Amino acid sequence: MKKTSNDIRNSRNIEQAAPCGPTAVVLLSGGLDSAVTAAIAKLRGFALHALSVNYGQRHGIELEAAKRVADSLNLCQHVVTTIDLRVFGGSALTANIPVPKSPDFSAMTQEIPVTYVPARNTVFLSLALAFAETISASDIFLGVNAVDFSGYPDCRPAFLECFERLANLATKAGVEGQRFTIHAPLIRMSKADIIREGTRLGVDFSLTHSCYDPTPAGLACGSCDSCTLRLRGFKEAGVTEPIAYSC
Amino acid sequence: MKKTSNDIRNSRNIEQAAPCGPTAVVLLSGGLDSAVTAAIAKLRGFALHALSVNYGQRHGIELEAAKRVADSLNLCQHVVTTIDLRVFGGSALTANIPVPKSPDFSAMTQEIPVTYVPARNTVFLSLALAFAETISASDIFLGVNAVDFSGYPDCRPAFLECFERLANLATKAGVEGQRFTIHAPLIRMSKADIIREGTRLGVDFSLTHSCYDPTPAGLACGSCDSCTLRLRGFKEAGVTEPIAYSC
Repeated sequence: MKKTSNDIRNSRNIEQAAPCGPTAVVLLSGGLDSAVTAAIAKLRGFALHALSVNYGQRHGIELEAAKRVADSLNLCQHVVTTIDLRVFGGSALTANIPVPKSPDFSAMTQEIPVTYVPARNTVFLSLALAFAETISASDIFLGVNAVDFSGYPDCRPAFLECFERLANLATKAGVEGQRFTIHAPLIRMSKADIIREGTRLGVDFSLTHSCYDPTPAGLACGSCDSCTLRLRGFKEAGVTEPIAYSC
Repeated sequence: MKKTSNDIRNSRNIEQAAPCGPTAVVLLSGGLDSAVTAAIAKLRGFALHALSVNYGQRHGIELEAAKRVADSLNLCQHVVTTIDLRVFGGSALTANIPVPKSPDFSAMTQEIPVTYVPARNTVFLSLALAFAETISASDIFLGVNAVDFSGYPDCRPAFLECFERLANLATKAGVEGQRFTIHAPLIRMSKADIIREGTRLGVDFSLTHSCYDPTPAGLACGSCDSCTLRLRGFKEAGVTEPIAYSC
């Protein structure tokens, strides 16, 4: 019997139904790393609620990518919250400071670049914690990485361990015995390994956006820290980069 | 010689000039505690930059009080940032949950009430940290109190100590050797002692707002947790409460 469009829709819903495991929050930037992180969390059986933050970033277009990624992974919920970090400034991503191009890899993990946003991951994790506590989730996933990264202090394991301790002290849930866990499954993976893992899990990288300084049309520049790391990762992984670049 | 309006303005500027000591950030809610905290920080010689957070609180009117307090203390700067915690909800202050009235004092520090906002002080301190790092401030003041308080977990010393460790791990400034200090000068004071100290420092309590559930005209209800603690504090301190109540 030929399937009707309703049959097809129902079948698709069953295949893509959100898992019924424990609830978790994932910070979803729209970039490659957080997409792979969400796919890993989903594979582990978590019912995933994604949180994206509109913080006045130069590359606000990444929020559209976050929506595409959330839709493609059929997450339980995708919440976008707004906190304008431009009121503080202090970064090439939130103030009128040029984004450096063609970065030197050897210097990248030694010097913290001007794309560092003061306390960004502390702000993001605190919002994820507020979200997690509200929906009774004990697990928070984020896609930080301490191998192929820009040297940001709030991507290091020691920071994440300290935030986990804080989460359990800061909350009513923690006082009442719930134990929060911060998961950073990519923390010790190279960008090439992240891309290989994402490919294995069926992540559609064409939906993601990594560039700090896209053209007005949304094309990646190909030469900022983030593009440079991404391009090198695809090359090393032997995977074709599916997005277009302006140069 | 009679003073001209310019002389008077200049003289006033000199008298009220912001101090030139180390820069600090103070979280200013518009309530009594944060006003006294700011006055203490100013007395200690800090050049104070105030941060208030518009988080969609039921008592958003407190932001007007924060502006009045900042003006009265002649702070260097008063920044208001917006993060709508209503997208998460989960509290009587950010969702459609009634604010409890005539609270039972004996239960107040044993049970965490529904006015608790998930991870609020973690969010606020992370924003204060972002602000502090941007303006090269090492000191952050906040008016939390663990004596006459509602039992909120993020008002306890252990939480603040953990956040201080986090601040030094989370930031470029911390990596480069700057040491952040979280100051909570009221942490072990009773509400009556806070009011006495504020009175001694000349804090104008008529400018402050504490009520969680004000009338549309902005009058304090007189019976929520916050009003109850405030009224008892003024009574115990033997100081006249200068604000009006709706009942």
